Amino acid sequence: MRFFSDNAAAACPEVMAAIAEANRIDAAYDGDAWSARLDGALSDLFERPVETLWVSTGTAANGLALAALCPPYGGIVCHRVAHIEVDECGGPEFYTGGARLLLCEGRGAKLAPDAVEALIAEIRPDVHQVQARALSITNATEYGRVYTDAETAALGALARARGLGFHIDGARFANAVASQSCTPADLTWRAGADALSFGFTKNGGMSAECLVFFTPGLAAAAGYRRKRAGHLLSKGRYLAAQILALLEDDLWLRNARAANGAAARLAQAAGADRLLHPVEANEMFIRVTAAEAAALRARGFDFYDWGPGEARLVTSWDSDPAHVDALAEAIRVL
Amino acid sequence: MRFFSDNAAAACPEVMAAIAEANRIDAAYDGDAWSARLDGALSDLFERPVETLWVSTGTAANGLALAALCPPYGGIVCHRVAHIEVDECGGPEFYTGGARLLLCEGRGAKLAPDAVEALIAEIRPDVHQVQARALSITNATEYGRVYTDAETAALGALARARGLGFHIDGARFANAVASQSCTPADLTWRAGADALSFGFTKNGGMSAECLVFFTPGLAAAAGYRRKRAGHLLSKGRYLAAQILALLEDDLWLRNARAANGAAARLAQAAGADRLLHPVEANEMFIRVTAAEAAALRARGFDFYDWGPGEARLVTSWDSDPAHVDALAEAIRVL
Amino acid sequence: MRFFSDNAAAACPEVMAAIAEANRIDAAYDGDAWSARLDGALSDLFERPVETLWVSTGTAANGLALAALCPPYGGIVCHRVAHIEVDECGGPEFYTGGARLLLCEGRGAKLAPDAVEALIAEIRPDVHQVQARALSITNATEYGRVYTDAETAALGALARARGLGFHIDGARFANAVASQSCTPADLTWRAGADALSFGFTKNGGMSAECLVFFTPGLAAAAGYRRKRAGHLLSKGRYLAAQILALLEDDLWLRNARAANGAAARLAQAAGADRLLHPVEANEMFIRVTAAEAAALRARGFDFYDWGPGEARLVTSWDSDPAHVDALAEAIRVL
Amino acid sequence: MRFFSDNAAAACPEVMAAIAEANRIDAAYDGDAWSARLDGALSDLFERPVETLWVSTGTAANGLALAALCPPYGGIVCHRVAHIEVDECGGPEFYTGGARLLLCEGRGAKLAPDAVEALIAEIRPDVHQVQARALSITNATEYGRVYTDAETAALGALARARGLGFHIDGARFANAVASQSCTPADLTWRAGADALSFGFTKNGGMSAECLVFFTPGLAAAAGYRRKRAGHLLSKGRYLAAQILALLEDDLWLRNARAANGAAARLAQAAGADRLLHPVEANEMFIRVTAAEAAALRARGFDFYDWGPGEARLVTSWDSDPAHVDALAEAIRVL
Repeated sequence: MRFFSDNAAAACPEVMAAIAEANRIDAAYDGDAWSARLDGALSDLFERPVETLWVSTGTAANGLALAALCPPYGGIVCHRVAHIEVDECGGPEFYTGGARLLLCEGRGAKLAPDAVEALIAEIRPDVHQVQARALSITNATEYGRVYTDAETAALGALARARGLGFHIDGARFANAVASQSCTPADLTWRAGADALSFGFTKNGGMSAECLVFFTPGLAAAAGYRRKRAGHLLSKGRYLAAQILALLEDDLWLRNARAANGAAARLAQAAGADRLLHPVEANEMFIRVTAAEAAALRARGFDFYDWGPGEARLVTSWDSDPAHVDALAEAIRVL
Repeated sequence: MRFFSDNAAAACPEVMAAIAEANRIDAAYDGDAWSARLDGALSDLFERPVETLWVSTGTAANGLALAALCPPYGGIVCHRVAHIEVDECGGPEFYTGGARLLLCEGRGAKLAPDAVEALIAEIRPDVHQVQARALSITNATEYGRVYTDAETAALGALARARGLGFHIDGARFANAVASQSCTPADLTWRAGADALSFGFTKNGGMSAECLVFFTPGLAAAAGYRRKRAGHLLSKGRYLAAQILALLEDDLWLRNARAANGAAARLAQAAGADRLLHPVEANEMFIRVTAAEAAALRARGFDFYDWGPGEARLVTSWDSDPAHVDALAEAIRVL
Repeated sequence: MRFFSDNAAAACPEVMAAIAEANRIDAAYDGDAWSARLDGALSDLFERPVETLWVSTGTAANGLALAALCPPYGGIVCHRVAHIEVDECGGPEFYTGGARLLLCEGRGAKLAPDAVEALIAEIRPDVHQVQARALSITNATEYGRVYTDAETAALGALARARGLGFHIDGARFANAVASQSCTPADLTWRAGADALSFGFTKNGGMSAECLVFFTPGLAAAAGYRRKRAGHLLSKGRYLAAQILALLEDDLWLRNARAANGAAARLAQAAGADRLLHPVEANEMFIRVTAAEAAALRARGFDFYDWGPGEARLVTSWDSDPAHVDALAEAIRVL
Repeated sequence: MRFFSDNAAAACPEVMAAIAEANRIDAAYDGDAWSARLDGALSDLFERPVETLWVSTGTAANGLALAALCPPYGGIVCHRVAHIEVDECGGPEFYTGGARLLLCEGRGAKLAPDAVEALIAEIRPDVHQVQARALSITNATEYGRVYTDAETAALGALARARGLGFHIDGARFANAVASQSCTPADLTWRAGADALSFGFTKNGGMSAECLVFFTPGLAAAAGYRRKRAGHLLSKGRYLAAQILALLEDDLWLRNARAANGAAARLAQAAGADRLLHPVEANEMFIRVTAAEAAALRARGFDFYDWGPGEARLVTSWDSDPAHVDALAEAIRVL
């Protein structure tokens, strides 16, 4: 019973059907009808003209976004546990040509304007020090917290005031939207974001992420960068088809709601004392003894340890309700 | 009727079945059973232990291979029309951190040892000039020619003598093997190659290439580079499954033979006078007047112009025999 | 008797005096009075506000200029024998983060607009190919030719029309100016140049070059790049002092005229038949048999062979008139 | 009265004389007699064969050393206040092609093996995280502390055990040696160091640092990197001459002893309560109120504030004894 990562989930039936459909068509690179529709579909979703690039991984989307927003000699403010810092093997450095991540603290992997301001204030404004040029947050965060539209807008205002490009790593953006009543637009460009790595792979896709540029003029250069990084797939129609299938009839939101709902059930079972962070999306971090963790595993639940005495459990669009119920019960009786 | 690129072909049924199968399994990144089998399957094929990395594009495979073989301050000898020079938007420069392509001439996009030696002889052996550190050939070439095992070995001997890493861009390696009686081993490591970008996407895959290292010790660093470049897909099982499906029962060879056979029929129809290069794989370059090209297009044949008075026609594993016959006839009556 | 390179010449007395003077002052990096005066002194010379950065080598100046004008995924049009191509070990690739040099032909190492246009016309305007983003010429050229203001302006107009940044490698800019009646302004920004690597080292300096930006806004980023490349010397006052000393009372022009005059005397002695290129600055390329070259060397003249049957002879600000006369005579009697 | 940086000190008379001498000789790049002697002179000093490269800044020396020891996808363990982290504008990232600095804590800017081990232990040994590949320490440190030979050797043993390249930023290596009884060899290769950035600029040079490789085979690649970074000065003889002049008769040690002695006198005056760190080299960090700092400045002493309530005072080879005495007295009476 898989709770170790939404990365390992299956592609949902609609995505598989779209891939099968894309297999009937001749077109190379992004010269297909699906790719042509992508900008429009996402412009509709975000209620404004956007420019988009499909890629197959979040690391690529993040790297391309950061290269668009930060020069090689600049710094990117992010959380100490941000995926771009701890899980991409230096992808941002590679894509930007040597920019530096400037690490900020914050509970639940969330950044607050105060902390960002304090970090920037420590940098001498001269050529000897790496100057902050971009800000990157993850929504939902690596600890399953979400930024509200107001929180995002506060960071966006800071970014504008400080001349920072503003990027959102949305590997679980769907889960962040699904957990709130505000819109994708509210959580991005209305809050000042320049670019979003919009994740679909964890949410029912096979291998498809969408880099969305809200600020005009950034996409053209990113298109060249995507090509030279080897991310312009020669049969890109399969990627575009996945994304369109997930956008269709808000499937992406329904998938995310399913994952969030499962996590909420687990959180209720765990109880506040056991939770390391409020469960707002599809990840739960709990305190467990080694014995408790072993007991859960003995019952067939697969999950990651997250430091001593802590565990991470992740639900996904296809989390089996029976497995979720069983896990909830198992946690309850720990 | 598509003859403009094998890049646009469908994925073959066995690949689609493998993808469907991979959709039933839980595993993240390359932690799945298919990925685990890849080294073994390719070691069998190449008759020696090899280390492999799946990636989703040839540009990524080439970039990773070249980064493994050439330092940032080195040069990579390749043909003037090599894909790495003309069709990857500077991918090699990006992956290597600024190495330079050193361009060599040769008919049919083939390099001969004499030409490579002459190019190297022009380089002053001092720190002011970029020194050749790697050699990259494409087999089958960008003009549909193939290197024999002997021709490859002659270049391999040169590479060894000159201290050059030796890379083969095998986007159409299957077609090169299928057109000859020698083995994959003969065309690679027995001939001195260090690394092969083994293409599957043009040959019945959806989006899957396999970077094969023959020289021990290169794969570990390439694994880190793949990750930071965003090419370690979180659901890599779909890629591994494609490759294994194509290796199974030599499907890759059967697919390539089908494509080569179709091109041979077209070549026979075209006749020697019209051919710009001997047709040895699945690409045909012919002389056509603008009127002739228009006539072919009017009949529904889709292909690329390739300079004034020249056209490229590419067959693929799924070229419809009826389309091929129709095109052969249409060319014959031009 | 040195005629092998102006690179090897001494620093002139005024420069040595300025260095001694700079040794009396306390200041770190570019916080000294000389550095502070540099922008003004060069703005005066160029008859408009410019921003400048001292560096210690032409390779650094060129790299910083090109990084300011060309993105990592772009191409830099230059001559096949340009110093940035043949003598900087990939410096432009290093500084730009992997841009590519796009090589153009032209007699005497000079580029003509037609040739540049033809090269650009060959590039498909899509993301698969490296697009031209900058143009770099060398004045005086690597073969001792000079661009006139009109020739430069023609290239500048092309650059503007094609959206290319326009850089001039002026390692021997002084010699180019000294050989003509037009002004430094005429040969640079009035002709459309964005940046000039203004060389002083070959012209009486010890180790000092000045990167001059005519286009506002480029210098700030270049300042960060200079620092991270290790070219912000901690005792920069010695560099600024050298440049100011050479600008004082047009010493740079007098030095260049001395070098040019010596070369002209040699050219007259050589005669038109022997000259491979018109001698317009301080370099002379001549046809010599191996026996003739040996004869010259036997008499104590030191110079470089420049391919079979060819030799390069370079004069400098400090070429001893007696040596020049002796060489002229020796060439005459060959 | 300058106490703000040894960076601003004059070049010592012997260095100025050597520069004048170098001005009499013809030679380009590193083809001069001084450059040719450098390896030998430093091999003598270090009691083993070493390979060396002159450069004009410590940032360049550090960048070249780190590029030799750490791949682009690796990490460099260093102190949080290391010069490479806080004062080189991302130079290490630029030179290595995107490696990451992994920051470690330690009093007085010193690293201890325990802290380094703890940092490495936190890194998951997989391709998702940047793996430590090099260790860089600064001796004397940025807070004026020194590593003993035993302390260095403990770090060297750790480096060897963990497969890390070991670099020493010796911008003030002379001061570190001068403060102890052990030899340059003891503090470097005998302690396991692969490379040393040996600083001369702060210690009586004009602009000259020496990158010393103890591990055979590293210098060749660094030579290419130096060239493409624009640090192979065309008149390198002036740099080599400076270094040789400072090595002659241990002038470098005498200069460093002078600076250290001046700092010791200041430290005695300050007293233990005021000192933030023991004064072991030529830097003193003290607690001062704003009023006290103002009082010192009113008397003509120039120095840096170093955070609130703290000041840095730096002596140099040419600190005027009268100034030092005056400052000591001024501190005493605060």
